[in-house]
Amino acid sequence: MSEIPEIIQELIKFRDARDWEQFHNPKDLAVALNIEAGELLEVFLWKSPEQADPDKVREELADVLAYAFLIAEKYQLDIKEIMLEKIKKNNEKYPIDKAKGTAKKYTDL
Amino acid sequence: MSEIPEIIQELIKFRDARDWEQFHNPKDLAVALNIEAGELLEVFLWKSPEQADPDKVREELADVLAYAFLIAEKYQLDIKEIMLEKIKKNNEKYPIDKAKGTAKKYTDL
Amino acid sequence: MSEIPEIIQELIKFRDARDWEQFHNPKDLAVALNIEAGELLEVFLWKSPEQADPDKVREELADVLAYAFLIAEKYQLDIKEIMLEKIKKNNEKYPIDKAKGTAKKYTDL
Amino acid sequence: MSEIPEIIQELIKFRDARDWEQFHNPKDLAVALNIEAGELLEVFLWKSPEQADPDKVREELADVLAYAFLIAEKYQLDIKEIMLEKIKKNNEKYPIDKAKGTAKKYTDL
Repeated sequence: MSEIPEIIQELIKFRDARDWEQFHNPKDLAVALNIEAGELLEVFLWKSPEQADPDKVREELADVLAYAFLIAEKYQLDIKEIMLEKIKKNNEKYPIDKAKGTAKKYTDL
Repeated sequence: MSEIPEIIQELIKFRDARDWEQFHNPKDLAVALNIEAGELLEVFLWKSPEQADPDKVREELADVLAYAFLIAEKYQLDIKEIMLEKIKKNNEKYPIDKAKGTAKKYTDL
Repeated sequence: MSEIPEIIQELIKFRDARDWEQFHNPKDLAVALNIEAGELLEVFLWKSPEQADPDKVREELADVLAYAFLIAEKYQLDIKEIMLEKIKKNNEKYPIDKAKGTAKKYTDL
Repeated sequence: MSEIPEIIQELIKFRDARDWEQFHNPKDLAVALNIEAGELLEVFLWKSPEQADPDKVREELADVLAYAFLIAEKYQLDIKEIMLEKIKKNNEKYPIDKAKGTAKKYTDL
């Protein structure tokens, strides 16, 4: 089994051992993801990027990823496929000659 | 190459072709992740979980994952490793006999 | 003094007694606001709207409002003015005859 | 009528003219608040605090405040009262002699 399905299998095993699927509707999973994204952001609050504690980033990023993977599983989305597909779309949205060296949003290019 | 490093390699290729590493400090990556998590959440706003458009979930989830993977890369974190490690920790934080069937936070178990 | 300036004055007094203005640049205030918005959202996680604890809503909402008011102060924005102005704009963006009874975004009306 | 009730009255008038109370359960209002907080944060993305566009801050902050005020109304919370109460609590949580000049969280003081 490749990596991503293996991780998802472990997440599901953890969830099902606790009978938590009943709570994991996709809306609450998206809510949980936002809460965890906020906790990850808190590692950087009032700090320069360099001052953030890497061990805390590690902890909080794992939580963010867990909910992201569970949402993918809920919709039977293939994570590699949707990410490569998005990179392809962004290649068109942000053509290199226009986007190079600027942080502007595609709507402002 | 296994899946996750392959995806990260594509993200980096996209980033470097646009000379965007200069903007991608970890704090702004965490900011970007929160913005994308908000956009994913918007797919569910004023709706029951079933009413959300799966195609929009697909799009927004890919953006969330992209920034999560870029943060992992920035700190040289192995995504599979940190996720399995977190599941192990949560196994202790949420013992099956106490956590089964309840959505309570570990602090309230 | 009317209510809003009075609240802001108390927030500033609290901040300045701790010499915290040095940390309160507008970007970190917006980061802090997002973290607090996430904590407010957590009160509703895995729950129906009715199951949320009103005392926790009270606590977390106060934190959200504090950072929102501090951002207003930072840019010398008059909270009443910007809110009434926005309602006026939304009156045009969401004409009653098109928006009545539907939760659609203005871009989909 | 004082300022805050006056603003809330305008928000309710806008809402009721569109028959939107049916969508405004407190959980979705908290979801909406998070989405708007993310849009406010986007004004600062990839930028130093000084580079953010004040006109965009004004727009997005008004949206954040609107949902915060609507949540207060939903729970019949007096905004001034809960904010002053929170400042009082924070005065105890962050004693001046320990908190002065440091951005540490109260749990680390």
